[in-house]
Amino acid sequence: MSIQITGMGSYIPEIVETNKDFLKATFLNADGSPFEIENDVIIEKFKAITGIEERRYAKKHHTASDLGYFAAEKAISDARLDPETLDYIIVAHNFGDVKHGSNQSDAMPSLAARIKHSLGIKNPKCVCYDLLFGCPGWLEGVIQAQAFIRAGMAKKCLVIGAETLSRVYDENDRDSMIFSDGAGATVIEKKEGLGGILSHESATFTSEEAYYLFCGKSFNPQKDANTKFIKMFGHKIYEFALNNVPQALKNCLDASGKSIEDVKKVFLHQANEKMDEAIIKRFYRLFKFPMPDNALPMCINKLGNSSVATIPTLLDLVQKGKLEGHQLHKGDVVLMGSVGAGMNINAITYQL
Amino acid sequence: MSIQITGMGSYIPEIVETNKDFLKATFLNADGSPFEIENDVIIEKFKAITGIEERRYAKKHHTASDLGYFAAEKAISDARLDPETLDYIIVAHNFGDVKHGSNQSDAMPSLAARIKHSLGIKNPKCVCYDLLFGCPGWLEGVIQAQAFIRAGMAKKCLVIGAETLSRVYDENDRDSMIFSDGAGATVIEKKEGLGGILSHESATFTSEEAYYLFCGKSFNPQKDANTKFIKMFGHKIYEFALNNVPQALKNCLDASGKSIEDVKKVFLHQANEKMDEAIIKRFYRLFKFPMPDNALPMCINKLGNSSVATIPTLLDLVQKGKLEGHQLHKGDVVLMGSVGAGMNINAITYQL
Repeated sequence: MSIQITGMGSYIPEIVETNKDFLKATFLNADGSPFEIENDVIIEKFKAITGIEERRYAKKHHTASDLGYFAAEKAISDARLDPETLDYIIVAHNFGDVKHGSNQSDAMPSLAARIKHSLGIKNPKCVCYDLLFGCPGWLEGVIQAQAFIRAGMAKKCLVIGAETLSRVYDENDRDSMIFSDGAGATVIEKKEGLGGILSHESATFTSEEAYYLFCGKSFNPQKDANTKFIKMFGHKIYEFALNNVPQALKNCLDASGKSIEDVKKVFLHQANEKMDEAIIKRFYRLFKFPMPDNALPMCINKLGNSSVATIPTLLDLVQKGKLEGHQLHKGDVVLMGSVGAGMNINAITYQL
Repeated sequence: MSIQITGMGSYIPEIVETNKDFLKATFLNADGSPFEIENDVIIEKFKAITGIEERRYAKKHHTASDLGYFAAEKAISDARLDPETLDYIIVAHNFGDVKHGSNQSDAMPSLAARIKHSLGIKNPKCVCYDLLFGCPGWLEGVIQAQAFIRAGMAKKCLVIGAETLSRVYDENDRDSMIFSDGAGATVIEKKEGLGGILSHESATFTSEEAYYLFCGKSFNPQKDANTKFIKMFGHKIYEFALNNVPQALKNCLDASGKSIEDVKKVFLHQANEKMDEAIIKRFYRLFKFPMPDNALPMCINKLGNSSVATIPTLLDLVQKGKLEGHQLHKGDVVLMGSVGAGMNINAITYQL
């Protein structure tokens, strides 16, 4: 028995927000003071570190569950699946549906229930729930789908990550340039044969780390202090990720029975290009193994950080031959790894 | 191998809001028009249907994760568990942490991560996530904990339900009188021996039912239409629950191998006293079996509807001999069943 990804889909919103679109922004320090440097310099530095040139925003009339629905339709079609046979729809997000212009998260009913409604699935035994696990939520949903299959409670699960971070950022915070909207979906099935999910790793760090990502007030002291936005301590997250993600990936790979020579690619959650490059270098260093070319597919330069959607979107692009220089073949072993609010870290070793 | 509840705890907030406290409320119809009848009559009718005399509200400086932490501490102590040995902390809710006076849900980091932080648990292998599944969320968390144990991914899980519905109701809506705050927690462990969770049932109905419970604008047309509150179509939910919950309970019991004669008590999510009485009558009618006395423990009259917290709180009260007329003994078979936003229905057959 194996547990395999049998279908993939992603939805990349059409609205392109370039770095230039932030030239007129009023960026402030956390204490509300203005920066001493001009926006074009801030943006250039931002691009050098994160790699982000542009990002995508959902249309005004769409919410995260709409994006998730669009991705889900593609994944179901890709898997050639009768959606009525799904046992679970698991949707990872962190802010629910946030209407354009609103500051309220809405996750009742669950986004999974909304997506099932949109898909027109009638079977009540298709159980829908939402999973909050920071940016690693989609990958954790895959791990949970795996648990239901192993426990004999499911055979087919649809796991979706959908988020509209453009609706929850503080426009006076430079970090606003990181955030993006998107959705990715995968069908996970119990199959005969080998391969599929070989091992997984999950962890939650909640000492000081619990509040490295949090909801906080605007940097603009003139704004209502009760209105909260996504906030983060970027440097601390960077250090935390560097100290913990490479080892988590190694633990995961070791548990799979595969060796570092087998690994064709590593799909990392994309929050910051420099961070991901440093993570994968340190990962290979743990094995004293030279890093191969093309091990780290990335699309953050064009798509930004869409939270739970980055890995399934990237995987979908590579799998469908839409990311230049990257191809996957039957039998390839890949790692997926993520880090985010919680702070949570997780990983999967997967054989195609 | 069995999967057992080895510890329970609940937190019942101290602030008592009586029906009289609503005498000065301005209740409106959905179209904004005033009622033709006086508040004392509205309240009397409300009490006759729901059974609610008073409900509990969290202190202003507490949020749902605080309530969940208080309940979790008790459950861990009750289980005589080293909290560092927990494999999962699963927190069910629907609105996250909503600060008093705010309309924003905040679930980043997850409430589970916040509670782990408050509990001072250091072990990163204790994985924290939040589960959104309407009012049946706590029971679904138990079902998921069971899946992780069966899949060999966990031995000990802490499952918490915590909600502050007092922060999300529309004060111009009569339904505001239903809602309450609270938290319940349970430790679920893999044990030798028989008993524990014998069977479960889960379902999600998302045709028209998906939006029976939703976030909608105030009945007061003078309020900002973009600010959303918890809203429900009470009559539709009542009919839906009557048509589906008794059969779900029967399916669950049938799958357990136990018979209706074995069932000592049924712990139902408490949203409405009359609804629960009608559900259990219809459940026994499905077996053509006379309903025994004292089969349906209830505390809604004093505690209102605290969403995900009603069942674990009720179970904790009965287990600890704090609900008059109700006792549990080793070997007793009980059912738990819930219905809520999604619309979701679930059930568990449990042997003490």
